[in-house]
Amino acid sequence: MKPGTNIQAETIRNAAIRISPYINRTPVLTSNTINRIYNTALFLKCENLQKVGAFKARGAANAILSLDKSLLTKGVATHSSGNHAQALSWAASLVGAKAHIVMPSNSSKIKVEAVKEYGGLITFCKPTLEARETTLAEVIRQTGAIEIHPYNNELIIAGQATSAFELIEDVNDLDILIAPVGGGGLLSGTSLAAHYFSPRTQVIAAEPEQANDAFLSFTGRQFVPSVNPQTIADGLRTSLGSITFPIILDHVHEVVTVSEASIVRAMRFIWERMKVIIEPSSAVPFAAIMEGKIDVAGKKAGLIISGGNVDLDDLPWLKHE
Amino acid sequence: MKPGTNIQAETIRNAAIRISPYINRTPVLTSNTINRIYNTALFLKCENLQKVGAFKARGAANAILSLDKSLLTKGVATHSSGNHAQALSWAASLVGAKAHIVMPSNSSKIKVEAVKEYGGLITFCKPTLEARETTLAEVIRQTGAIEIHPYNNELIIAGQATSAFELIEDVNDLDILIAPVGGGGLLSGTSLAAHYFSPRTQVIAAEPEQANDAFLSFTGRQFVPSVNPQTIADGLRTSLGSITFPIILDHVHEVVTVSEASIVRAMRFIWERMKVIIEPSSAVPFAAIMEGKIDVAGKKAGLIISGGNVDLDDLPWLKHE
Repeated sequence: MKPGTNIQAETIRNAAIRISPYINRTPVLTSNTINRIYNTALFLKCENLQKVGAFKARGAANAILSLDKSLLTKGVATHSSGNHAQALSWAASLVGAKAHIVMPSNSSKIKVEAVKEYGGLITFCKPTLEARETTLAEVIRQTGAIEIHPYNNELIIAGQATSAFELIEDVNDLDILIAPVGGGGLLSGTSLAAHYFSPRTQVIAAEPEQANDAFLSFTGRQFVPSVNPQTIADGLRTSLGSITFPIILDHVHEVVTVSEASIVRAMRFIWERMKVIIEPSSAVPFAAIMEGKIDVAGKKAGLIISGGNVDLDDLPWLKHE
Repeated sequence: MKPGTNIQAETIRNAAIRISPYINRTPVLTSNTINRIYNTALFLKCENLQKVGAFKARGAANAILSLDKSLLTKGVATHSSGNHAQALSWAASLVGAKAHIVMPSNSSKIKVEAVKEYGGLITFCKPTLEARETTLAEVIRQTGAIEIHPYNNELIIAGQATSAFELIEDVNDLDILIAPVGGGGLLSGTSLAAHYFSPRTQVIAAEPEQANDAFLSFTGRQFVPSVNPQTIADGLRTSLGSITFPIILDHVHEVVTVSEASIVRAMRFIWERMKVIIEPSSAVPFAAIMEGKIDVAGKKAGLIISGGNVDLDDLPWLKHE
């Protein structure tokens, strides 16, 4: 069966119902100033105001809550240096399950502390993909925990789809819907939500130029891995997955790329104008608007703000400018 | 007639209806982490996500929209170095009226630019209260504009009351409701909204120790002016007014004060945990919770986040720590 086929309209709707007692119904914000500058009607779906500060809470909650309790007695496991680590720890705590998190030894102190705070059990490893995967395999062998992949998992994708599902409920008749793309969990979920619930809406993905594997994969219709990308958008450094890529090929209209300087400029602009804290990865779609890569003039556009986890001692415009 | 007597339940409800097409119904945010740490249920009413980035949009809109168009032909006028200047410029632009703004010559470039962007007509003056008042009088003499005081004005107070009015609609049965106090426009409006729509809710004000004129006025039951206060909370440096002070005496339960270090710590904590940008003045109520000056344990507490206008190049924790 084709990847993603299991994710039907009902799958997404049920995920939304399943996770709703635990997650925030995040607000949708607008700015008259931004709308005037770009002659548009832009709606920001603020997953930075989600539990754990990122949309990842949705997928993790959907995965955990979908599993039979008997499967959770040995806990869940993943490798992640980022928001999925926190999200899975948080989601596991909702049902009293253990979350085994393999983190690279160079993970930021802030992220390590956050995982601990949500009760995650951390195993450190060398900062290579190989070390992460072999360490995770060893942790799973020892504990019997179930692996929850950060994006290449249909339960995760269906959970991430609920953000766009809510946005479409709140704002009808969107012309376009923009999301950032890293591993493609958010993007594939967003594109499926649009497909089922707002079929005329074009879904556009935005990606850093310096991590343009999704752009290359999409335009070439053939998987290109992400190899050691150097981008400030730390949530978008991963490669597409075997489940997310085919969904994206089927349901995404376009992938565009933006410069690092634009990402920083867009991030600061949103902080200043919208008064919400967004992380660099979340600034990538707006950077594409600022660069003119996505034309929103005269259109009604939705934009998924993916998360807000940043180090407040280390703001990019205080270094780059 | 006693000051504030004109502001009845209907006055506030009508203000809410009058301004609703123009302002944001601001979201109410919560944090499980904060609730766990303080054993409370804390609801943040986010006026930082309001038009012009502050609750001041409510009062200014209510004042402008309440005036007969014939009165607005010569415009409105005020002196302000802060959020009221932007709010009045914005509100005047809603009805095509001119806003004459007297600003001290040392106003931050960012605030000057913001006033210009909303179409405000700026007259600069020396940075003293006397110069501001005499310059404003001269501007009014020359233009015939109507003065809209930033807080000592019943239309402004009724407008500011709509934030608490909305919060009380969204979250019932609050035990306490906390607001910062500067000139008292927000605080007096908040206390009247609680009085009419949630009478058992205790309204508590929070103020910087280094600008404790409201604390002294409230505890001594006699007006004490604010004289050259040195606080990072730039929205809270003004004295109470002849209208706001009596309302506060009648309807506020307590005024507490906090240190400058607590304000910076609280501001950063809200940025990190809630992912919203709040200005120092808005951090004062939460600083009072962190200092233990307001006990929220076992209580349902509302907190008005007054605004989010900060200079992102000049963050206090990057200097003070």
